[in-house]
Amino acid sequence: MTDARTLELLQDFLRIPSISTDPAHKGDVHRAATWVRDQLHRAGIANARLIEGEGHPLVYGDWLDAPGKPTLLLYAHYDVQPPDPLDLWHTPPFEPSIRDGNIYARGAADDKGQMLILIRALASLMERDGRLPVNVKILFEGEEEVGGEHVSRYLAAHTRELSADAAVVCDTEMFAPDLPTLCIGLRGIVYGEIHVTTSRTDLHSGMYGGVAPNAMQAAAEIVTALKDRDGRIHVPGLYDDVLPPTPAERAAWARLPFNETEFLEKEVQSEALTGEPGISVLERIWARPSFEVHGIRGGFTGEGAKTVIPANAVVKCSVRLAPGQKPERVAAQLAEAVRAACPRGAKAEFRVFHAAPPSLVNPDHPLIRKSAEAMAEVFGRETVYIRSGGSIPIVGLFSEHLGIPSILMGFGLPDDNLHAPNEKFCLANLFRGIEAMQRFLEHAGVSVDQRMNEGSA
Amino acid sequence: MTDARTLELLQDFLRIPSISTDPAHKGDVHRAATWVRDQLHRAGIANARLIEGEGHPLVYGDWLDAPGKPTLLLYAHYDVQPPDPLDLWHTPPFEPSIRDGNIYARGAADDKGQMLILIRALASLMERDGRLPVNVKILFEGEEEVGGEHVSRYLAAHTRELSADAAVVCDTEMFAPDLPTLCIGLRGIVYGEIHVTTSRTDLHSGMYGGVAPNAMQAAAEIVTALKDRDGRIHVPGLYDDVLPPTPAERAAWARLPFNETEFLEKEVQSEALTGEPGISVLERIWARPSFEVHGIRGGFTGEGAKTVIPANAVVKCSVRLAPGQKPERVAAQLAEAVRAACPRGAKAEFRVFHAAPPSLVNPDHPLIRKSAEAMAEVFGRETVYIRSGGSIPIVGLFSEHLGIPSILMGFGLPDDNLHAPNEKFCLANLFRGIEAMQRFLEHAGVSVDQRMNEGSA
Repeated sequence: MTDARTLELLQDFLRIPSISTDPAHKGDVHRAATWVRDQLHRAGIANARLIEGEGHPLVYGDWLDAPGKPTLLLYAHYDVQPPDPLDLWHTPPFEPSIRDGNIYARGAADDKGQMLILIRALASLMERDGRLPVNVKILFEGEEEVGGEHVSRYLAAHTRELSADAAVVCDTEMFAPDLPTLCIGLRGIVYGEIHVTTSRTDLHSGMYGGVAPNAMQAAAEIVTALKDRDGRIHVPGLYDDVLPPTPAERAAWARLPFNETEFLEKEVQSEALTGEPGISVLERIWARPSFEVHGIRGGFTGEGAKTVIPANAVVKCSVRLAPGQKPERVAAQLAEAVRAACPRGAKAEFRVFHAAPPSLVNPDHPLIRKSAEAMAEVFGRETVYIRSGGSIPIVGLFSEHLGIPSILMGFGLPDDNLHAPNEKFCLANLFRGIEAMQRFLEHAGVSVDQRMNEGSA
Repeated sequence: MTDARTLELLQDFLRIPSISTDPAHKGDVHRAATWVRDQLHRAGIANARLIEGEGHPLVYGDWLDAPGKPTLLLYAHYDVQPPDPLDLWHTPPFEPSIRDGNIYARGAADDKGQMLILIRALASLMERDGRLPVNVKILFEGEEEVGGEHVSRYLAAHTRELSADAAVVCDTEMFAPDLPTLCIGLRGIVYGEIHVTTSRTDLHSGMYGGVAPNAMQAAAEIVTALKDRDGRIHVPGLYDDVLPPTPAERAAWARLPFNETEFLEKEVQSEALTGEPGISVLERIWARPSFEVHGIRGGFTGEGAKTVIPANAVVKCSVRLAPGQKPERVAAQLAEAVRAACPRGAKAEFRVFHAAPPSLVNPDHPLIRKSAEAMAEVFGRETVYIRSGGSIPIVGLFSEHLGIPSILMGFGLPDDNLHAPNEKFCLANLFRGIEAMQRFLEHAGVSVDQRMNEGSA
């Protein structure tokens, strides 16, 4: 196995515009699935196959000839985001271009480069040993960017076939270049709409301004009642279930190479940060719930002037859940808070669109430790444990349906431009990722086996 | 002249979608202007013509063959509001439908039906007498719903040509069905946008929720800072210039047939009224400033879920001005209040789109009295004097540039759904309006002539 061959394969993979949200690319998404299946065959996963269903196919394969060894469920996705806006790309999104040690293309980091890490690690071990050190079940999907309906239904219906000791999810990023990183916590989400109604019809602001309730004003009142200027959420009971990070975790976060000024200027690109006073930036993102308004529909927002008192407003919003919080409970708390915040003359109701639980993996879990060790060996530095403020729904599904933790081994970088023009993936991380993954599988075979022997002794 | 012909003409007129705010309908607006000009020709105003310029054309014509008689400047507008939301109309907005003595269409009451009252009154007098009892100058515009830029510039530049004793503005409503009404006061308006910016780019709510400022949240904070839940506006100095109504006017308003419960249930169609405590509903609408949000643009408001922290929000809003207030001063006060209300991490700026002063006419003016008499004769009841909460910028312009009062003879009804789906106009008022307008022109010719004779005796 050579690096040149790996690079060639990644370029082939990136040339397929597998944009899952765009019906015009349905054929390309299918082509990407077939390409992945063929690579798994070449890696020695003889039974790799497409699982067709509504939506885009899953790619499944397994190798279960290591009795007594742990079983890992390997996950990544082969679909990509749309490349718009196209005019901001320096090279075309589906013609991979190598510059300064990076490969630029839509899907380079999210998630084709990382899927290839899994495939090439398997291929390398098979080529060398003719076998794998652990059992693996491979579940790749093509709908991650559009909600993952297919994999969600499949998981719920095939819990026995997919049973494993842990999942390995290759779809996250490192905290900083050259810093091996394990993400052990994710926020959950409750996404929905607040529907505000003040009248059966829009009214003229001349004829009724001063006496008629205004749905847009009512929406603003509800929104400001739910979150104050300090970023504190005023939803009764919301913070009750939040698990604070341990003092050791807080101390570790404080040692991370994080510069608040740089973060503000380069990433947030704003005048000032907001949020709960007295709580660190990383804790606010990783371990505190947040409430965000995504947009408010209703009234007149076009060009020109229309003097209407809107009768309806729809606030699109979400709450990110910190570990400890439960989506159903938060949704109910939010619904109640919306009702309570609704001003005179208005009716308001919160409707949930979708929800995902937060997750937190015990850093002392033996497989997590082995993963950290493998990365530390390859990168030559101690692996740091971080969390992410985002939600990776598949992690919640693995926990819910299979009862297993997810090991988030990710090799992206913070400036990889995910979902944006000029997405890239660092080639050094591609090769180090393959090596780290290979070592992890080897360690996993040894160490857990030993522990099992110890346990039965 | 027959009622059937009048109705046929109104239907023709209403079929033209002369939506002045929408560039796609520029041709239709022009078509409406041409239609109006042709009707004036048929009514005997031989020199009626379009006045082209930036924006939509004016229609001008005059008949000045009554020496010694007063000159009236007749005003109405042929443009209409957009019909959105289309799905709430029972019949299409530009296919006039007659039901229960009303004609339903966008522009039926505002203002095509009322413009036709002027045209048909002239036509009727000309047909009967071959002349008019007073001098008239006719000035119709096609930009009333978008700020009236063209007519405003034209007025400022042609004050001598447009000189008159009074203007007759046909664009208001009666206080109640069958109750002849003269409107002697109007609110002004300052319409604009609050531009809120928090970052150079929209951000992912998972990665930045809890630390990044949110332009939509900031917009909500500004909006709620500007007006509280009681409807009191918190713009420093805003109430300083408000002229309170006289005790006599307040007493007259208290005698009007106004039922607050009915007003709430039938017109506002809401759960409760809002607004400043301790001030009557009519005074809140007619003699107090109001602040309304018309819509908030920005972020994601489409179907489905997008977890974006919006970097920009644009609040479309307006303040209605009570008599006594000055648009420039209110715009400056609002701009300052917006800056003061802007939260940390956001920049906010108020930009004025257009403004119009409030106005108040002396009810003892002889032409106002003659107008009240003409209406009382046709409707068989004493004419009441009211005000309107709306803004008719042209009234302020007539006062500013020509130094003349405006007689607001309006025949709309409170439930005509102006600017809303299912706009209508009462056909009985169309026909009574033509008769009342005709009588007023006759009385105006006689009475003012007599007064002038008395004055010179």
